[in-house]
Amino acid sequence: MFRLAAELERDSIYLDDWPLCRLLLANDARYPWVILVPRRSEIRELYELEAADQQQLWRESTWLGRGLMGVFAGDKLNVAALGNQVPQLHLHHVVRFFGDPAWPAPVWGKGAASPYSRDRLREVGDLLRPIIEGLTP
Amino acid sequence: MFRLAAELERDSIYLDDWPLCRLLLANDARYPWVILVPRRSEIRELYELEAADQQQLWRESTWLGRGLMGVFAGDKLNVAALGNQVPQLHLHHVVRFFGDPAWPAPVWGKGAASPYSRDRLREVGDLLRPIIEGLTP
Repeated sequence: MFRLAAELERDSIYLDDWPLCRLLLANDARYPWVILVPRRSEIRELYELEAADQQQLWRESTWLGRGLMGVFAGDKLNVAALGNQVPQLHLHHVVRFFGDPAWPAPVWGKGAASPYSRDRLREVGDLLRPIIEGLTP
Repeated sequence: MFRLAAELERDSIYLDDWPLCRLLLANDARYPWVILVPRRSEIRELYELEAADQQQLWRESTWLGRGLMGVFAGDKLNVAALGNQVPQLHLHHVVRFFGDPAWPAPVWGKGAASPYSRDRLREVGDLLRPIIEGLTP
């Protein structure tokens, strides 16, 4: 059974389940930031995924990354599997803009997260919907 | 023709060319840190790679990541395509240890790089050789 790490659950908003991954929106309105969590609770490292899962992860990541950059018209996409704080495998996708609060540094550990307001969350949800539904089985 | 970004060339040591990627050792002895640069000079984002190249990148990344963690016995592997400073697509693989100089933060922008001494570079080169040669055509 899939179990999501408590920290990921606390700091994010559930979007959907794709064939392999749970899709989470990081609850930080400073950046369009979506996290893919393969529903393989025991896996910590990318290279531990079975080949078929790995291929599916990259299909989902490619769809998500292209979609986010298309919708938000970012300047750069940051894709990262770090896991120093939360070892459960999860893959960040962060749309970056010249002059965003952390630019050009990575976003992790730079200032405090800015939780979504209800209105902004609804707006972002509307923007994300075509991406999310594009891969929903 | 493949052209490596000047900043990557300046801050790293050439290791080898794999079927898709140039392998670079980041010139920072604080971390075992190898960078894969697909020899597709014009590509900036993972999702822009053609499907066959993407699959090859993940084959090379999997081999490299597993190898690095095996050889250096790290606590966590960080894999990231950022590119905020150097837009040419490159994929970092950083072996992390509990208590390393940046732990648990990401390594980017934390303190100054510690260039390799000649002796330490030879040692690390010896450790990396089986990984490198394992995928050399």
